Amino acid sequence: MTKRGETAISPTREEDYSEWYQQVIKASDLAERSAVRGCMVIKPWGYALWENIVDALDAMFKATGVQNAYFPLFIPLSFLKKEAEHVEGFAKECAVVTHHRLEKAPDGGLVPAGLLQEPLVIRPTSETIIGDSFSRWVSSYRDLPILINQWANVVRWELRPRIFLRTSEFLWQEGHTVHAAPEEAVERALLMLDIYARLAEEYLAMPVIKGRKTASERFPGAVDTFSIESIMQDRKALQAGTSHFLGQNFAKASGIKFQNTDEKEEFAWTTSWGSSTRMIGGLIMTHGDDDGIILPPRVASAHAVLLPIYRSLEEKTDVMIYAESLAKELRGIRYHDAPLRVVIDDRETGGVRNWIWIKKGIPLRVEIGPRDIAQNAVYLGRRDKKSSDKFSIKREAFVGSITQLLDEIQKNLFERALSYRNAHTITLDDRDGFYAFFTPKNADQPEIHGGFALSHWCGSQDCESKIKEDLGVTIRCVPFENAPQNGSCIGCGKPSNERVVFAKAY
Amino acid sequence: MTKRGETAISPTREEDYSEWYQQVIKASDLAERSAVRGCMVIKPWGYALWENIVDALDAMFKATGVQNAYFPLFIPLSFLKKEAEHVEGFAKECAVVTHHRLEKAPDGGLVPAGLLQEPLVIRPTSETIIGDSFSRWVSSYRDLPILINQWANVVRWELRPRIFLRTSEFLWQEGHTVHAAPEEAVERALLMLDIYARLAEEYLAMPVIKGRKTASERFPGAVDTFSIESIMQDRKALQAGTSHFLGQNFAKASGIKFQNTDEKEEFAWTTSWGSSTRMIGGLIMTHGDDDGIILPPRVASAHAVLLPIYRSLEEKTDVMIYAESLAKELRGIRYHDAPLRVVIDDRETGGVRNWIWIKKGIPLRVEIGPRDIAQNAVYLGRRDKKSSDKFSIKREAFVGSITQLLDEIQKNLFERALSYRNAHTITLDDRDGFYAFFTPKNADQPEIHGGFALSHWCGSQDCESKIKEDLGVTIRCVPFENAPQNGSCIGCGKPSNERVVFAKAY
Repeated sequence: MTKRGETAISPTREEDYSEWYQQVIKASDLAERSAVRGCMVIKPWGYALWENIVDALDAMFKATGVQNAYFPLFIPLSFLKKEAEHVEGFAKECAVVTHHRLEKAPDGGLVPAGLLQEPLVIRPTSETIIGDSFSRWVSSYRDLPILINQWANVVRWELRPRIFLRTSEFLWQEGHTVHAAPEEAVERALLMLDIYARLAEEYLAMPVIKGRKTASERFPGAVDTFSIESIMQDRKALQAGTSHFLGQNFAKASGIKFQNTDEKEEFAWTTSWGSSTRMIGGLIMTHGDDDGIILPPRVASAHAVLLPIYRSLEEKTDVMIYAESLAKELRGIRYHDAPLRVVIDDRETGGVRNWIWIKKGIPLRVEIGPRDIAQNAVYLGRRDKKSSDKFSIKREAFVGSITQLLDEIQKNLFERALSYRNAHTITLDDRDGFYAFFTPKNADQPEIHGGFALSHWCGSQDCESKIKEDLGVTIRCVPFENAPQNGSCIGCGKPSNERVVFAKAY
Repeated sequence: MTKRGETAISPTREEDYSEWYQQVIKASDLAERSAVRGCMVIKPWGYALWENIVDALDAMFKATGVQNAYFPLFIPLSFLKKEAEHVEGFAKECAVVTHHRLEKAPDGGLVPAGLLQEPLVIRPTSETIIGDSFSRWVSSYRDLPILINQWANVVRWELRPRIFLRTSEFLWQEGHTVHAAPEEAVERALLMLDIYARLAEEYLAMPVIKGRKTASERFPGAVDTFSIESIMQDRKALQAGTSHFLGQNFAKASGIKFQNTDEKEEFAWTTSWGSSTRMIGGLIMTHGDDDGIILPPRVASAHAVLLPIYRSLEEKTDVMIYAESLAKELRGIRYHDAPLRVVIDDRETGGVRNWIWIKKGIPLRVEIGPRDIAQNAVYLGRRDKKSSDKFSIKREAFVGSITQLLDEIQKNLFERALSYRNAHTITLDDRDGFYAFFTPKNADQPEIHGGFALSHWCGSQDCESKIKEDLGVTIRCVPFENAPQNGSCIGCGKPSNERVVFAKAY
């Protein structure tokens, strides 16, 4: 193992990327595994991050006319079955409620009782149950569009769970819209994808590629699935949000009909779009380093921690007065329309506490000791710099520049992530080179290899499956920003007129 | 039936209170029944109201140091059983997950498959699953107090569901705290009850009585349950929030231990406290009238609707320009720290639209026609006044006074509700009078009778049960503000030193 400070994360990313991911979450106190298989506990530091993500997304949704509502957790089995591809896609991961009470067994134990006539599936997604309401809400073109979003928990049973990335229960939002015309529905699906891209790039500092999924990677029941794809530091892709044009499939399944302007009845056109706590996993793997996680200021659980340093009770009194007054002053400053989030950690002094906050990824660490007070200054550490790279700054200058400082950190994180993606995105035209790119070279580091390969694809599902089978590599998307270009398929050599993004994926 | 406008709610409260409740919800578009037995769909107008309640509560919680987190939806059956009274209390209403996938049956249908080794109960409340995390989070007195809240859905199976009041799934918050000393835990439980009372009185305009529950009405597993009780317009009580001192019961069940300042290990002292979408039911039944619901401005889904009135396209253009500019001006005004919520309804003109908004309970209806524009005025209707009681007001005066106007409506609603409670709260010392008070006099109006009876009670559970059996009346609480007073028990005549609140209840 590399020789490093005992306080940093072990193992490093290079040593064991998956284990680093688990350890970095533990050290940051974002979340933990629960006693329930596959389910996580989101701890306060992680939940505050989620709340900031929710606030940002919710405001963007509402600005486009979307309204929030809430629909049942349970879906009658008969509803889920209404769309054949849909139920097929989710059948293997459905939690099923079969009983509605508990009863004393002869041996004194408690057992499920009150068998339900029809089993209820816990929503893995809500197209069918929301569609049932929509079928009652819509009767004329005048009722359209309907633009609804729901913040909710969903359950997709996971046999190999991983905190934030794949958990049996997760938190998300799911938008569902109904339109009188297909063009309008597609436009809405793309508008919501733009919002996901804005959230990823402007808030999470994660550069993304917007594109269309191939048929095999589509949402079960969708006509078209659009996604944003981001690269992680093990060079795998993470899909951070998807938006679906559902055509009339779900309208037909749920009976969402409307009278058009010609007074003829027709099925409506629907969309759905979702993003989840999985984004937090993406954020961790985009920015985290061997010292812990790094939170982009726009969504950080807190922006700054004040760390009073003292050696006596008398010193503590002075330092705390200074810290409290600074905290109050900072909390009065607005950063992107909300007050700065500032915490004071007056526990024991010393390096351990400093490392706790580095691991938690807080953008700014503000040390305040008697010497700093004497100079009316603070001693500042930035999470986007080396942990030892700290400097003294006058209090007034700090207060006056903190929002710029945070914006600078935000920008640095985005640019660093973009450089990483650029460094690991490659244009590949020969099959051997492609196969070599996605094959681990070093047995000690089997995880980190590959990246985004921009290669030609003929459009055949066979080529796609063959590559997936051989390498575990899939087409992440056909990028929207794609210059038409003649070439030959990386799989079969047949003619192709555009490149797609190949990668291993989460 | 009383002769009334066809546009109002039918039946009236007097005619059929339960049916009025269903109809008023339907007409307001707050929520609807779903296809899943016992579950509701909260529609955008209802969900916006809930969002405002959540925002108010969440800010009050956080101001006392509470942090949000999120715990699993599922509780292993073995966890629920850890506290004997607790599981007893909830066993009859537990939704149980027994399978984790669906499989094709021989007949082609889908059936539950993947039997779980241990059934999972969908949380009816989360003491036991959160306690499991707490047992890992706490090891020393230095880790205490822990002050956690979770916004979540819970499930308590209902055989006789009623929207907002009793639904199998509902939305709520549940707070859970851990303390090193019992006094501190009791203090926290009472502090949170105060917040519920503030929410009820200052935001929902519902006067409440704070008090302690008797043993038979306690939360299963609690040492003490405190509640706020409000009177509805059928004179029944509604419990709008509860806070529990759990003693060491749940700490023992979950193993929440800490090393105290003497370095001895002891069990911690915990609390839990919750409030739910049920409050919306209370709000409806406190303020609603025979014209529809009435939303208190502090939590109203929207504060004002602008209703453009026109007879030609040309008139519409002018009126819409005026309305848009007024809406923009109003949205720039802050009401209790948030921008005014203003909607424009430019659908068809006329009385129907006006009635739609009366039924939806919006505080202010602002009609704007060519005549109003000519006078630079608006024609204003207040939901706390008669529907016909409208008046013209200069635009400038309206804009300048709207926040006062809303505060006045808020105050009126509270005072009206308080008068109602006073009118239906009675001091009763004779048993016959007590029984007569709670017995319907008029066969045509079996529902609306009784009220809050302040009567003496000896403290015996037998007397309490007898009254419950005879009249369906329970002790709602022993009020905190209760002058000691000698008297004799309304049930058995034995000596008593304080009065309690008796009522029928939701």
